[in-house]
Amino acid sequence: MTAQEPAADQTNAEHGTYWYAADKQALLGRLRRIEGQVRGLHRMVEQDTYCIDVLTQISAATRALQAVAVGLLEGHIAHCVMEAAKDGGDPSAKVKEASDAIARLVRS
Amino acid sequence: MTAQEPAADQTNAEHGTYWYAADKQALLGRLRRIEGQVRGLHRMVEQDTYCIDVLTQISAATRALQAVAVGLLEGHIAHCVMEAAKDGGDPSAKVKEASDAIARLVRS
Amino acid sequence: MTAQEPAADQTNAEHGTYWYAADKQALLGRLRRIEGQVRGLHRMVEQDTYCIDVLTQISAATRALQAVAVGLLEGHIAHCVMEAAKDGGDPSAKVKEASDAIARLVRS
Amino acid sequence: MTAQEPAADQTNAEHGTYWYAADKQALLGRLRRIEGQVRGLHRMVEQDTYCIDVLTQISAATRALQAVAVGLLEGHIAHCVMEAAKDGGDPSAKVKEASDAIARLVRS
Repeated sequence: MTAQEPAADQTNAEHGTYWYAADKQALLGRLRRIEGQVRGLHRMVEQDTYCIDVLTQISAATRALQAVAVGLLEGHIAHCVMEAAKDGGDPSAKVKEASDAIARLVRS
Repeated sequence: MTAQEPAADQTNAEHGTYWYAADKQALLGRLRRIEGQVRGLHRMVEQDTYCIDVLTQISAATRALQAVAVGLLEGHIAHCVMEAAKDGGDPSAKVKEASDAIARLVRS
Repeated sequence: MTAQEPAADQTNAEHGTYWYAADKQALLGRLRRIEGQVRGLHRMVEQDTYCIDVLTQISAATRALQAVAVGLLEGHIAHCVMEAAKDGGDPSAKVKEASDAIARLVRS
Repeated sequence: MTAQEPAADQTNAEHGTYWYAADKQALLGRLRRIEGQVRGLHRMVEQDTYCIDVLTQISAATRALQAVAVGLLEGHIAHCVMEAAKDGGDPSAKVKEASDAIARLVRS
C-alpha cells in the first residue's frame, strides 16, 4: 500500500481494508477448512447419512463461520474504527457498521 | 432401499434415514450453493475485500446453512420420530435427538 | 382436563395444550428466575454497572430463555405432534408449527 | 463524574462506565418492557397457553434482549474502546472485551 499504487491504495484506504493482511494466510486456511466441511456435508447427504449426524456437522460449520466473523469484527474495531478516529476524526460511521454487522450476525 | 440391498437397508432402517431421498437433489443443490458462498468468502479475503462486506457474506452463508438445518429437523420430526412411534413404539429417543439438535443449532 | 370441563377441554384439546401440566411448576419457576435476571439487569443499569458486565448478564438471560424454548419444543414434538398423528391422523400442520418455531428461535 | 465524587468516579473511570448515562432512561424503559414480556410468559404458562404461542413470545423477548445487547456493544465501542485509545493509549484490552462479548452473544 504505497504511493506508487494510488488506485488500490485509494480503494483500500477508503475502506480501511488490508488490516487482515498479517493474518491473511490463517484466515484463508480457516475458510478452506469450512469449505471442506460444507463439501463433507454434501458427501454425507449423497451417502444418505442419518439426518441428526448431518445436523451435527451443520452446527460445526456454522460455529466455524461465526468464529471467523467474530475475528473479523475484532479486527474491524481494532483497525477500521481506530483508523477513523485518528487525528480527531469521527469514527461513528465505522462504529455503526460494526453494530449493524453484529446485529446481522446475532440474527443469523 | 430394496430387499436386494439388505446391509444398507438395515443401517438406514435403524437410523430412519433416506427420508430425504425425495428431496435429495434439492438438498444437494442447496449445499453446493453454500459451498460456492464459502469459496466466494475465500476469494473476497484473497482480494482484500472490506471486512464488513466479508461479514455480510458470512451472515448470508450462516443463514443458508441454518435454513438447511431447519429443513432437516422438520424432516426428522415428520419421518424419524413418526417412524419410531408407529405401531405403539416409543419415539422418546428420537424426540430427544431432535431437541438436542435444536439446542446445538440455537447455540451455534 | 376431565369431561366435566368441556369448554376448557375443548380449547386445549384443539391446541394440544396442557401437555406441560406435569412440569408446570418447574416451568413457572424457571420463568420467575428469568424475570429476576431481567430485573437484575435493570438494577445494574441503574447503578451504572460496566457495560460488559451488563452484556454478560444479558447473554445469561438469553440462554435461559432459549433453554425454556428448547424444552417447550421437545414437549410440542412429544405431545402435540404425536397427538395429531394418533389414529392415523395427519401431523403435518403440527410439524410445520414446530419447524417455524425452530426457525424463529434460531433467528432470535 | 467530578473530582468531588472520587469513589464513584474512580470505579467508573476505571471501567469506562457512565457512557450510557445519556440514554439511561430509554435503556431502563426497554428493560422494563422486557421484564413485562417475561412476566407475560409466566402468565401464559399459568393459563395453559398453547406451547407454540409461548414460543413465539420467547422469541420476541430474546430478540428484545439482543437488541439491547447490540446497543450496549455499540456504546462500548464508541466510548470505552475510544476512551482507552485516547492520548496514544492501548485499547486492545477493551477491544478484546468487545469481541468476547460478541462471541458470547452469538452463542446465546
